Amino acid sequence: MTVLESSAPVLEGVTPTPADKFSFGLWTVGWTGSDPFGVATRPSLDVVEAVERLAELGAYGLTLHDDDLFAFGSSDAERRRMIGRLTTALSASGLVVPMVTTNLFTQPVFKDGGFTSNDRDVRRFALRKVLRNIDLASELGAETFVLWGGREGSEYDSAKDVQAAFERYREAMDLLCQYVIDQGSGLRFAIEPKPNEPRGDILLPTVGHALAFIDTLAHPEMVGVNPETGHEQMSGLNFMHGIAQALYSGKLFHIDLNGQRGIKFDQDLVFGHGDLANAFALVDLLEHGGPNGGPAYDGPRHFDYKPSRTEDASGVWASASANMRMYLLLRQRAAAFRADPAVQEALRAAKVPELRQPTLNEGETYADLLADRTAYEEFDADAYFGERGCGFVALNQLAIEHLMGAR
Amino acid sequence: MTVLESSAPVLEGVTPTPADKFSFGLWTVGWTGSDPFGVATRPSLDVVEAVERLAELGAYGLTLHDDDLFAFGSSDAERRRMIGRLTTALSASGLVVPMVTTNLFTQPVFKDGGFTSNDRDVRRFALRKVLRNIDLASELGAETFVLWGGREGSEYDSAKDVQAAFERYREAMDLLCQYVIDQGSGLRFAIEPKPNEPRGDILLPTVGHALAFIDTLAHPEMVGVNPETGHEQMSGLNFMHGIAQALYSGKLFHIDLNGQRGIKFDQDLVFGHGDLANAFALVDLLEHGGPNGGPAYDGPRHFDYKPSRTEDASGVWASASANMRMYLLLRQRAAAFRADPAVQEALRAAKVPELRQPTLNEGETYADLLADRTAYEEFDADAYFGERGCGFVALNQLAIEHLMGAR
Amino acid sequence: MTVLESSAPVLEGVTPTPADKFSFGLWTVGWTGSDPFGVATRPSLDVVEAVERLAELGAYGLTLHDDDLFAFGSSDAERRRMIGRLTTALSASGLVVPMVTTNLFTQPVFKDGGFTSNDRDVRRFALRKVLRNIDLASELGAETFVLWGGREGSEYDSAKDVQAAFERYREAMDLLCQYVIDQGSGLRFAIEPKPNEPRGDILLPTVGHALAFIDTLAHPEMVGVNPETGHEQMSGLNFMHGIAQALYSGKLFHIDLNGQRGIKFDQDLVFGHGDLANAFALVDLLEHGGPNGGPAYDGPRHFDYKPSRTEDASGVWASASANMRMYLLLRQRAAAFRADPAVQEALRAAKVPELRQPTLNEGETYADLLADRTAYEEFDADAYFGERGCGFVALNQLAIEHLMGAR
Amino acid sequence: MTVLESSAPVLEGVTPTPADKFSFGLWTVGWTGSDPFGVATRPSLDVVEAVERLAELGAYGLTLHDDDLFAFGSSDAERRRMIGRLTTALSASGLVVPMVTTNLFTQPVFKDGGFTSNDRDVRRFALRKVLRNIDLASELGAETFVLWGGREGSEYDSAKDVQAAFERYREAMDLLCQYVIDQGSGLRFAIEPKPNEPRGDILLPTVGHALAFIDTLAHPEMVGVNPETGHEQMSGLNFMHGIAQALYSGKLFHIDLNGQRGIKFDQDLVFGHGDLANAFALVDLLEHGGPNGGPAYDGPRHFDYKPSRTEDASGVWASASANMRMYLLLRQRAAAFRADPAVQEALRAAKVPELRQPTLNEGETYADLLADRTAYEEFDADAYFGERGCGFVALNQLAIEHLMGAR
Repeated sequence: MTVLESSAPVLEGVTPTPADKFSFGLWTVGWTGSDPFGVATRPSLDVVEAVERLAELGAYGLTLHDDDLFAFGSSDAERRRMIGRLTTALSASGLVVPMVTTNLFTQPVFKDGGFTSNDRDVRRFALRKVLRNIDLASELGAETFVLWGGREGSEYDSAKDVQAAFERYREAMDLLCQYVIDQGSGLRFAIEPKPNEPRGDILLPTVGHALAFIDTLAHPEMVGVNPETGHEQMSGLNFMHGIAQALYSGKLFHIDLNGQRGIKFDQDLVFGHGDLANAFALVDLLEHGGPNGGPAYDGPRHFDYKPSRTEDASGVWASASANMRMYLLLRQRAAAFRADPAVQEALRAAKVPELRQPTLNEGETYADLLADRTAYEEFDADAYFGERGCGFVALNQLAIEHLMGAR
Repeated sequence: MTVLESSAPVLEGVTPTPADKFSFGLWTVGWTGSDPFGVATRPSLDVVEAVERLAELGAYGLTLHDDDLFAFGSSDAERRRMIGRLTTALSASGLVVPMVTTNLFTQPVFKDGGFTSNDRDVRRFALRKVLRNIDLASELGAETFVLWGGREGSEYDSAKDVQAAFERYREAMDLLCQYVIDQGSGLRFAIEPKPNEPRGDILLPTVGHALAFIDTLAHPEMVGVNPETGHEQMSGLNFMHGIAQALYSGKLFHIDLNGQRGIKFDQDLVFGHGDLANAFALVDLLEHGGPNGGPAYDGPRHFDYKPSRTEDASGVWASASANMRMYLLLRQRAAAFRADPAVQEALRAAKVPELRQPTLNEGETYADLLADRTAYEEFDADAYFGERGCGFVALNQLAIEHLMGAR
Repeated sequence: MTVLESSAPVLEGVTPTPADKFSFGLWTVGWTGSDPFGVATRPSLDVVEAVERLAELGAYGLTLHDDDLFAFGSSDAERRRMIGRLTTALSASGLVVPMVTTNLFTQPVFKDGGFTSNDRDVRRFALRKVLRNIDLASELGAETFVLWGGREGSEYDSAKDVQAAFERYREAMDLLCQYVIDQGSGLRFAIEPKPNEPRGDILLPTVGHALAFIDTLAHPEMVGVNPETGHEQMSGLNFMHGIAQALYSGKLFHIDLNGQRGIKFDQDLVFGHGDLANAFALVDLLEHGGPNGGPAYDGPRHFDYKPSRTEDASGVWASASANMRMYLLLRQRAAAFRADPAVQEALRAAKVPELRQPTLNEGETYADLLADRTAYEEFDADAYFGERGCGFVALNQLAIEHLMGAR
Repeated sequence: MTVLESSAPVLEGVTPTPADKFSFGLWTVGWTGSDPFGVATRPSLDVVEAVERLAELGAYGLTLHDDDLFAFGSSDAERRRMIGRLTTALSASGLVVPMVTTNLFTQPVFKDGGFTSNDRDVRRFALRKVLRNIDLASELGAETFVLWGGREGSEYDSAKDVQAAFERYREAMDLLCQYVIDQGSGLRFAIEPKPNEPRGDILLPTVGHALAFIDTLAHPEMVGVNPETGHEQMSGLNFMHGIAQALYSGKLFHIDLNGQRGIKFDQDLVFGHGDLANAFALVDLLEHGGPNGGPAYDGPRHFDYKPSRTEDASGVWASASANMRMYLLLRQRAAAFRADPAVQEALRAAKVPELRQPTLNEGETYADLLADRTAYEEFDADAYFGERGCGFVALNQLAIEHLMGAR
């Protein structure tokens, strides 16, 4: 039993259950701690133990890359053996596999990418590896197939014909979509953006770039995004804003939650152990950002994090628990925030709800607007000097105090 | 005569002419040097002098916000008087106005934005201001109407309903597009992304986010992007990559060239005075990145920069010249790079042209690919270990040497 | 009465009193909202009102630049009149002036800096302006004289002989120290680092650089640092770490508290409205980081922030209150964190206290260490693989939960 | 023969010779390409081949960590065998070992650091490992002993008592200095700063912090810094500025040259393949920044870079060559820049040399300055408005044109 477990007060509502839809990558709790300047600090984790421990902790799902489960280049027999071990453990534990993804980044063959490698043979191999893994996704009952193109990119500007790379990316996506359509499995794709690391610059660096790319595909309706907290924050972007745009575009198919402390290497901390205020806003959006104030997203709350390299096995499981506990704590705080009459008053004072109101009157045309002298000729713009303050700081103070449990 | 002018060697091909399509914002050479910690260091610049000097230096275009030409709140008479002075100067000089944009950020009324202000009256006022300025754009013969939403955003996560903001943004864009359609002017819109400053987080922070947003509009074909070098680099993104994605999406309607030295406040340096290697790659893309190696973009090369606050009038014009000279020097270097047989050999060795080749054979389906044993079962992935290096560093060294005129 | 004030629950211990030593810059609550892309949104604030309001809110101190109180270039009479108004208000309110600083950045004359301007006449003028203001500091009873060299720097690498700049900086500091020594006032200097903005690169960009520079002075004992939260975070540095190094060096003479959300322009948000977790750690350090667990710093808790440009006067004062309330809330949470037995157990498990124990035994020499076979030859380094986890994640979860009031 | 070698024009002065003092870390050309998301793409490189190839390419020195040469935990016999192989190769090739450093970061035992690990046993082990390696440094004739504390730091603010950590760091340094003093070898230490990666925050994050720390040691004269291009740029700092401060402090004992493209993970690109303009300014400083315009630094030009993971062995050596070629090209360009009369005129116009002139007249006291009415009372500060521009942009344009070989 870890320090965390032993001492955690029994707060109501912060004990995870499968209904909370928490899922973890097999590669997360399974990370052995190897980093650019150090070797592994922990032994590898068996998939069966992973399933059992996550189920005990209250998770509902496990996700995986092909190579997480069976080593790259495994024989068919070994592959089947490992799949069998996984499915047996899933059945026993009740855990599901809501998402599967393909590793196109670890092996030397992918050193210049998969779908957009300059080397055409590699591109064909990458497609085959993904097609095979789509079959596995279907077999495991996954609903979402994530594509993180971590090696699709370049270090040197002249080494990649970027427009051509997008054409190849699209070619790959169109083929995969057609394959899934013909399979009839209902599987949906989710592209995961990242700005850099391991490549100097990665294609589709942000949620926005991925959304824009999706619109160029033959079947855009089958493809959404899988934004990761740290990946957006590595570009200094507001993660909640990015998620809101993905929701606005109807494209939040999956989400990777973790923590990042600013613009630097990819930290993959526990969710909430990075930018706490933004995590609060994110949970508030996911849980209360729907059109009627209800959930804006009902998919898995997926943690793509790394238990710090300093930790041993007890720290691994303490960190897994911490992710879920952080989410649940923030969910409680967000609910209290929304319910507080003082907050509602402050939101009204800040005219936040007024933004839901269309700018035009019902049926109004630009001609009507042009004819409305109160909108321009008689509008007193000067009245905004020294007056009509927005009340944003007071509202934010309320938010922070709710986050801190101080109200 | 400035130091720069006096001493510049007469290099062939680096003297700007209108055929180079260089344009400048009136607010660029006209910037008086006021910044967050200091007052103006230069007097304001008259529009007529701006036109005359830019024409003398070889520019072809001037661009402007409404408030650059006539003060916010000007009477109609004053507005007409200033427009008259501009058009007279344009006629005399031969300069054109290829782009017009609207100031929705300077005045207190826009403190929470224009199209997405929480305050509905402000949104209506903003629309009216833009509609009026579209008329001016048509009057001046502009082809592109830029929209930079610098105040559309927030500092505090709970102060802005971001999904609602996108709905209002779309509502505004749809109205403006309809207006232009009905006018029949052929004017196109170009959205200019920026991640932050002056707002803590600005909506549509990158080229990608803007492209994605455009796809949600009623008339996406009328709206493209106006990316700015420094704005993308403020997020640590590769500007050339962003431009390549805009080109891939058919959306590079306009471009703002300048210089930025890393992730920090918006510097607006002279083009090439920031990330020089990326500027080289950008010019190479614009000039030789088309499908057959020709220009990928034929619109104005627009400089949106600020003459440093340390400079007086002679420095203002020296910096204006420097922008054009940098572009022309880089254009020469990029042409030499493309023409060098050693470069062509290095590109082939790095398989850069191979990325133009589709991954699938002509007519090949996924079924065919699945049946191709050479693509997977017989593919030797291990051969990429220790061999089949990509040759990217050598290629980049060639690029840098061409940039440095060392070959 | 603002939303914040009206609705704030009466939490014990979060009502500021002069004993808390909260101080504010006159330029903070007095900021009118002018920024690089917008004009003022608020009228200027009279110094008397500033003093009265801050006193009402529970502050103990006001700080100021010369030019905050009387306009640059004021006549002696006007200067004396404004000083008189200030001192009268101070007497009436009980507020003190613990710190004074000089404006060497707003006026055109300082466009290339003050002490390190390339222009020697400007350097001499800057020295005179500071000397005059030291007299004012003495007159007002200030203990600390802050020097922020916001214009000491460059945009272009060849435009500044940086080694020479340090020599001039040192020359200036040595002269100022001698002046204060001869005055016998006991005034101490505190250098405020910043990496950039308004200059492209500012000299003494971080706490470290300032500490290193101080060591080259004739009177290093008279000069310390005045670190600002956002300034360090603009470089992606851990503010708490920087403060700890300043404390280790005995140089934390003053501190500027505010909020910053990552690497971007200088935001000057309310303290705690940026990186909340780091703010918690900072308050914990200031309040409990002394050698015996008591305060590590007993000087003013000075807020150098800007009330957001969106706010009117009520928002200005709400934001001023919010700074103090955030500090007091964090102080409470830090105290609870330190007092929690589970935390103490987790700290011991993480061996945090063991770092206070010297690495060598008492009196041990390197020869003794070399002779200790348990230290090397018999030391089992392999035992750290898979075992001896540090327990850092569990400890951090406890910290975050205390921050959130969830324990 | 690589593409680069085959096609490089024979430019005079860009062929490296030992007189240029170029050195490489054994870990640089020996890097096998393992990164956080991928396994090695190249086999390991034997030390003898490294020595031979570097000598052939014109380098003069090889540097190494203990664990680069013999695996962690090697028997004494194995250690001696490998040292023997190295020294034999050195003798044969003429290469020297000017610098040695210790690996305190790769193994699990150092997961929380070496000198500042919370675990005292680890600290003692780390000291022993370094002491042993100092003996090796002496044996190999090294002049400089570098200390990079890459694991000295934390991810979580409460997990490290930072002030205590500095005390332990100092304890370690004082012991090591005493050891070297007693050995009489003349070896000097050089601390290498880095802001983060692999730890979330590393102690001594910048050149400034390291310089400040050195001043707290018992023997500061024995300890300097070893700044690395990319490490400073990972904090957004100007590397040339940092080197200038190290020179001003007399502490530039060694230097690590490489390339970095902005604030992100540690890229370790070829020198000049990152921020090219800053690399130009750096070489100019090193070569012409001395008090009389001569070299400001005469130590090794040490490349601490990584041949990109995409490269095979030919790319490794092409990249090694590229480092030296970039330095030599930049040295030529900097020399031409300094020699150009137009540059000299522009420097004078920008008053750059005037900064070498003391601000005070010879023998002038503050009393004299206070009595000089021309310095203040009669000084016309207003004359700097609209006039007395600094000419910095024109100067920078000259610098960029020299960098580009365009003059």
